Amino acid sequence: MISLIPDYLAATLEACPPDAHARNADYIPELARVDSSLFALAIATVDGMIYSAGDAEAEFTIQSVSKPFVYAMAIEDRGLDEVQRRIGVEPSGEAFNEISLEAGSKRPLNPMINAGAITAHSLVASPDDDESARVRRIVAGLSAFAGRELSIDRTVAESEWHDAHRNLAIGHMLRSYDMLTDDPDVVVHGYVEQCAVRVTTRDLAVMATTLANGGLHPVTGEQVVSSRTARQVLSVMLSCGMYNAAGDWLTAVGIPAKSGVGGGIIGALPGQVGLATFSPPLDEHGHSARGVQVFERLSEDMDMHLMDVPPPARSVVRHSHVVPLGRGSRRVDAHVYDLQGDIRFAGAERVVRLISDEPPTTKTVVFDLVDVHALDETAARMILETVRRLAADGHEVWFAGLDDAPLTHGRLDDEGFDLGRGVHVRMGSDLDDVAEQIMRA
Amino acid sequence: MISLIPDYLAATLEACPPDAHARNADYIPELARVDSSLFALAIATVDGMIYSAGDAEAEFTIQSVSKPFVYAMAIEDRGLDEVQRRIGVEPSGEAFNEISLEAGSKRPLNPMINAGAITAHSLVASPDDDESARVRRIVAGLSAFAGRELSIDRTVAESEWHDAHRNLAIGHMLRSYDMLTDDPDVVVHGYVEQCAVRVTTRDLAVMATTLANGGLHPVTGEQVVSSRTARQVLSVMLSCGMYNAAGDWLTAVGIPAKSGVGGGIIGALPGQVGLATFSPPLDEHGHSARGVQVFERLSEDMDMHLMDVPPPARSVVRHSHVVPLGRGSRRVDAHVYDLQGDIRFAGAERVVRLISDEPPTTKTVVFDLVDVHALDETAARMILETVRRLAADGHEVWFAGLDDAPLTHGRLDDEGFDLGRGVHVRMGSDLDDVAEQIMRA
Amino acid sequence: MISLIPDYLAATLEACPPDAHARNADYIPELARVDSSLFALAIATVDGMIYSAGDAEAEFTIQSVSKPFVYAMAIEDRGLDEVQRRIGVEPSGEAFNEISLEAGSKRPLNPMINAGAITAHSLVASPDDDESARVRRIVAGLSAFAGRELSIDRTVAESEWHDAHRNLAIGHMLRSYDMLTDDPDVVVHGYVEQCAVRVTTRDLAVMATTLANGGLHPVTGEQVVSSRTARQVLSVMLSCGMYNAAGDWLTAVGIPAKSGVGGGIIGALPGQVGLATFSPPLDEHGHSARGVQVFERLSEDMDMHLMDVPPPARSVVRHSHVVPLGRGSRRVDAHVYDLQGDIRFAGAERVVRLISDEPPTTKTVVFDLVDVHALDETAARMILETVRRLAADGHEVWFAGLDDAPLTHGRLDDEGFDLGRGVHVRMGSDLDDVAEQIMRA
Amino acid sequence: MISLIPDYLAATLEACPPDAHARNADYIPELARVDSSLFALAIATVDGMIYSAGDAEAEFTIQSVSKPFVYAMAIEDRGLDEVQRRIGVEPSGEAFNEISLEAGSKRPLNPMINAGAITAHSLVASPDDDESARVRRIVAGLSAFAGRELSIDRTVAESEWHDAHRNLAIGHMLRSYDMLTDDPDVVVHGYVEQCAVRVTTRDLAVMATTLANGGLHPVTGEQVVSSRTARQVLSVMLSCGMYNAAGDWLTAVGIPAKSGVGGGIIGALPGQVGLATFSPPLDEHGHSARGVQVFERLSEDMDMHLMDVPPPARSVVRHSHVVPLGRGSRRVDAHVYDLQGDIRFAGAERVVRLISDEPPTTKTVVFDLVDVHALDETAARMILETVRRLAADGHEVWFAGLDDAPLTHGRLDDEGFDLGRGVHVRMGSDLDDVAEQIMRA
Repeated sequence: MISLIPDYLAATLEACPPDAHARNADYIPELARVDSSLFALAIATVDGMIYSAGDAEAEFTIQSVSKPFVYAMAIEDRGLDEVQRRIGVEPSGEAFNEISLEAGSKRPLNPMINAGAITAHSLVASPDDDESARVRRIVAGLSAFAGRELSIDRTVAESEWHDAHRNLAIGHMLRSYDMLTDDPDVVVHGYVEQCAVRVTTRDLAVMATTLANGGLHPVTGEQVVSSRTARQVLSVMLSCGMYNAAGDWLTAVGIPAKSGVGGGIIGALPGQVGLATFSPPLDEHGHSARGVQVFERLSEDMDMHLMDVPPPARSVVRHSHVVPLGRGSRRVDAHVYDLQGDIRFAGAERVVRLISDEPPTTKTVVFDLVDVHALDETAARMILETVRRLAADGHEVWFAGLDDAPLTHGRLDDEGFDLGRGVHVRMGSDLDDVAEQIMRA
Repeated sequence: MISLIPDYLAATLEACPPDAHARNADYIPELARVDSSLFALAIATVDGMIYSAGDAEAEFTIQSVSKPFVYAMAIEDRGLDEVQRRIGVEPSGEAFNEISLEAGSKRPLNPMINAGAITAHSLVASPDDDESARVRRIVAGLSAFAGRELSIDRTVAESEWHDAHRNLAIGHMLRSYDMLTDDPDVVVHGYVEQCAVRVTTRDLAVMATTLANGGLHPVTGEQVVSSRTARQVLSVMLSCGMYNAAGDWLTAVGIPAKSGVGGGIIGALPGQVGLATFSPPLDEHGHSARGVQVFERLSEDMDMHLMDVPPPARSVVRHSHVVPLGRGSRRVDAHVYDLQGDIRFAGAERVVRLISDEPPTTKTVVFDLVDVHALDETAARMILETVRRLAADGHEVWFAGLDDAPLTHGRLDDEGFDLGRGVHVRMGSDLDDVAEQIMRA
Repeated sequence: MISLIPDYLAATLEACPPDAHARNADYIPELARVDSSLFALAIATVDGMIYSAGDAEAEFTIQSVSKPFVYAMAIEDRGLDEVQRRIGVEPSGEAFNEISLEAGSKRPLNPMINAGAITAHSLVASPDDDESARVRRIVAGLSAFAGRELSIDRTVAESEWHDAHRNLAIGHMLRSYDMLTDDPDVVVHGYVEQCAVRVTTRDLAVMATTLANGGLHPVTGEQVVSSRTARQVLSVMLSCGMYNAAGDWLTAVGIPAKSGVGGGIIGALPGQVGLATFSPPLDEHGHSARGVQVFERLSEDMDMHLMDVPPPARSVVRHSHVVPLGRGSRRVDAHVYDLQGDIRFAGAERVVRLISDEPPTTKTVVFDLVDVHALDETAARMILETVRRLAADGHEVWFAGLDDAPLTHGRLDDEGFDLGRGVHVRMGSDLDDVAEQIMRA
Repeated sequence: MISLIPDYLAATLEACPPDAHARNADYIPELARVDSSLFALAIATVDGMIYSAGDAEAEFTIQSVSKPFVYAMAIEDRGLDEVQRRIGVEPSGEAFNEISLEAGSKRPLNPMINAGAITAHSLVASPDDDESARVRRIVAGLSAFAGRELSIDRTVAESEWHDAHRNLAIGHMLRSYDMLTDDPDVVVHGYVEQCAVRVTTRDLAVMATTLANGGLHPVTGEQVVSSRTARQVLSVMLSCGMYNAAGDWLTAVGIPAKSGVGGGIIGALPGQVGLATFSPPLDEHGHSARGVQVFERLSEDMDMHLMDVPPPARSVVRHSHVVPLGRGSRRVDAHVYDLQGDIRFAGAERVVRLISDEPPTTKTVVFDLVDVHALDETAARMILETVRRLAADGHEVWFAGLDDAPLTHGRLDDEGFDLGRGVHVRMGSDLDDVAEQIMRA
């Protein structure tokens, strides 16, 4: 069978015709000259599968799509506090190249407008590094996000540098408020090179997925940035990524995103996928016109809107019953809580609720986690606290299938899983294994 | 066992001390006079369980927390298009009571600032309804969100009306641009009554949960507003709910929220929970100071940040193997895909990918869905399309456990599940049932 | 001979054709309906002569042209300090009906935009007076400026009140910041009546002249407002009278002015003339299009630009020589300074300089002021101080022609004009009279 | 006698104590280091007399006080139209160094804020000139205004250039909108040199007087700029010279002015005087604190407020009577209009009015202009037109004292002064001369 996904992607491209009013960016000839019929879509999953349609291997300059990644690098290199002192996180309601700063703090409003992006650029690498080290670090960092070595389009960079008056204006303004500490000419020159890094639509999809995957590259396995950094970046993309149409995008598409004047747009759904589109002609907001269409369609067709309520899940508690474990004299009646599915706060709450409402009637209690699909930190802590309370009430608690679950609170010792304060959980790989261990005891 | 959740909530309240700089709203004596030590937290799950701590039964006026709910009613009553014509969705970067409109369109920037909320108020009920019908509809609507009958605090309403100059200024401004079509005095009077509806912290948590639950009330089961409306409201809460600190809130807390000058704050996590806090003293942004602390703590402790990447899930495909179904001459070898967990786009993609990479080697193919916890619309469509392609390749496809899955595309007939174009899926309640049917055939 | 001035005015009107793009104000039918071909120009001199051309007797509503006059009344009734606390004097760079206040002070930026004009309206009469007393005072005040009894056009007032949403918005905003202390509905209602007072172009010219004449009515001789108030009003007209085109007006026309949506414009040149035009169709700034043309032409043709440097004047000192006064033994040689023309600081400086450079060689010194046309306060003080110094040097000083000069510093006594500190100036009606008195002595 | 004016100036300085809150500009060490107790005042008259008090010979850098003069040079070099295309004339309501442009046109709002001043700098000299030629032209132009050779303080210029980030930001912004066509680094470098030109308070007073005197230097007699240019510059100083306190300055002081961060302030009263003060410590608006005090006091004490209504003048028509000219048979009765004083529109109007009301009863009509102090263009034209009408009515018109009056309309020929269309005016130096000529005829 041929995968249906490429077909779907191809059909999506076909359903998004060129916009007669859209035009390539034309402030430099190199952008004006790009083939405006190029059109591509790529989706990369968090386990590294990449689907694409159209001209997904065509290279173009990354432009503003570099901003979230370089913001991430700045946070990694200088810490979030230092970065927050110099770059805000508020939507600006203004065009991307507005020459304005936050009243009072004099910070750029956010890292997605040029003022913030230039500041973020200046915060990458060590304060002692010179321009060329900083640019090398940025190209290396973008390459790490992409999972392949990227390079700068020197022709585009030179052409943009030749016409960088607005960014130089921003740079000098930032310098006048000490938001930049380096020479603004040098910083803007480096920023122009950052924007001229060449990428493909596939690259962008993978880069987006790395953010969506908590900073972990889905193919190379490199932890490019920390998950906390990735969360910060995604949050800012959500509120500020689409500039002055941020609210429209958030209600209509609902995917954290970032567009670039070169024609690229990325989207990142936390824990799910990264998306990228490419089509050079821009709409009146400066976003790729067909790219916006594609995102609207994907969000609609694929329930990718962040505010979509997921479908009702089956109960986390599949069964709650007393089961005889083992045979003969060693047979023990155990209250088995058979759990299933993705368990986050809401699921754990149901487990806790059930146990509070119908406490176990047997000394031995087993949580059967074999069918648990995922268990987040909060749910894990809630279940472990429940175990502690059951232990305090005199119960002996077993986990079946614990080895697969992300329980990092406690440590394994001879008596099982030590929760501290004298509480131990015994473990088996499944219910039969638990029964066998009980029999052996 | 006593549930740990109330303990956790109580501990959370204790960990959030009063802010010495915060003060009750004091523009009317009734708000200044509210006991500033009142403090409460409530969480309501989408299946109707409500936990609370502190003074969760104390009544106070809902104030601006009414805004998202009345915006929802306006969308229900007039349609999203009509409402969008008169109220934008862009964050304002301004204080809640700013007298300003979107350049060009002259719409209020969003429904969370007073200008937009007053406009939303005016759009509730039928255009032919008078003020008292509109207010009755709003009180009834808020009551439906809360699941109990709410009422207006007449003393507060009268006092606010006495000092409603700023809202009257906004009302007349809206009227001058035809964003309001009614008498602004009448609309603002009704809006003041809306803000004076009395609620408890428990009420607010349930109301928030109704939004988080796609508009479906978790206790009464009433579909208060459509899921599309709920999505629109949550999106706007996310970008505009916390006024000019929207970006800070989004990065630091990451929960769609709305605060009110009476001291309440609600938060709603789609598909998960609704939250509410109450503490009258306000910080310099006009948000309940302790409420903000509680939300920051909950977001941090409970991984409730929307941009948190969920924990890695177990594989959606538990097994992919050939299994003999039935016995004797009727025995049939079937390729069984044993799926599990929450399946959305990313999960379905893995199923599709597996089948593309390793096509079934037997004529009979079974999707075992018994352990599937949830299956969203997109995933369902992807799996059905896979079935169609397998059928086209000559396979006979069975679903085990289909009855529980939300497959709404197609219809049941004698030959099973009709996918159109001559493709049928046969169904069994589990793998044994499939085997039995094959035997009987 | 027929005066050439009416001819000139008529020629000016003819030279200003209708502007095809200009349109009557149409927010109320009463203004839209005014005959748009009406066209008038009037000039009134500070001694009460009125010239006019066109439809100078046609009545129309004064609208915003009332603002400077009512601002003047507010200053008279409450004092400049109180008025300045509530209304600024800065140009706004905004449209006349902008809903905005000065940052920080929350005052309206100036009294020429509606926010300031509504505030000024509320400050007329005593704080204890009710609306009808206030409106009566304003109509009486406008009538005093015009020199005839004016009245309100009730139809226009009612129609404007019906559509006063924007002004009501402004009024409530002002009330919310306590810039208004009365009920905004009442104040705006009164303001609407103020704007509906009926005037002719001749009235407006006379009203402007009263301002240009230091508040003294050129015909009735009533001191309608103090000269200090008139100066304040003219200053504000200069910088703010033409709204967001204030700078253009100031450079191109250079006459303190104020326009109204009814089609009137006034201009006032301090000490010289008042001007008024009337033509209902408005340009894109909301000014009478033909009125603006007329003012540009008048400024150009008649050297009325405030920044025009006046032509070089003849020397203030016509002669400085020693002259024998009287005959025979009583004959006295006197140093006579024969002064002429308008003497302000610059002229007095030359007198002082001359006397310092060439001190009088005779004991008797005479200032012959017969040909002095005007002597301002500063020049008078300078000359008197010079007299004091001459007296200190032992000179006996006479003024010839003093009775006509505005010397208010000192008092007449038997020995002449007493300057205090023992210094007297003797006086004669002309040089012969001085000689005669010397003879008689 | 010692002139009282120096005493007055010294007393004025004494009456303006240091402001404890004011501080030298400190963004570069060279300005911070200037002796903050330096204090000076100078007044220069349009005929070249200069009075001063305090440290009027101390040199300091001109800074923003250069702006009006360089704006004047730009107008001279490129024409007003070209300059207006690139620099507006509207008050900005913003700080002097605001990075903002006029909406739409993208022009700097006016030439008194840095953005406009940098643009004006770039428009001086020919477009083909390089930076050094432009700076030479500017230093030469400022020197021409001062009447002595000025030079650049290289230490200050270098220090300012080192910290010119804000001006570089403005320069690049202007370049990005093509308001500058040169390299912004070069233009800003030149602008920094312009600001570092060293002047004394006496220099500034003379420079201001040159503007007040229609561009004609009061000492050197050089026409530095045209009177039309001077008028434009004075107009812009009036509305924009004192930045965001323009309205306060206009109402309270009423003198076109410009301040600089070096501590200088100039004021210019058209046709009267130029003023300058110097005291380095600045108030919160960035104006010399003591300088502002001095100007307020001068305006108050010396009636220098532009909106002050001048004192009532004596009648322009001293006598209107029939006088016998000559003797015997040649004696002619003539209607003599004996005029006096400064005659502008208002005065001429009275003459015209009188002649219309009481037409001459004799064939011969004499205008006795001997005591006319000044006659402006408009008045001259009005009187000549009156002459034409009298000639048309058959009168023979004489001017006595015409040679001194600025009558440029017509030409002298054998028959007198030819007004065209066959109308001649005969002329005599005074009434006796007229009589004699009549006798001789």
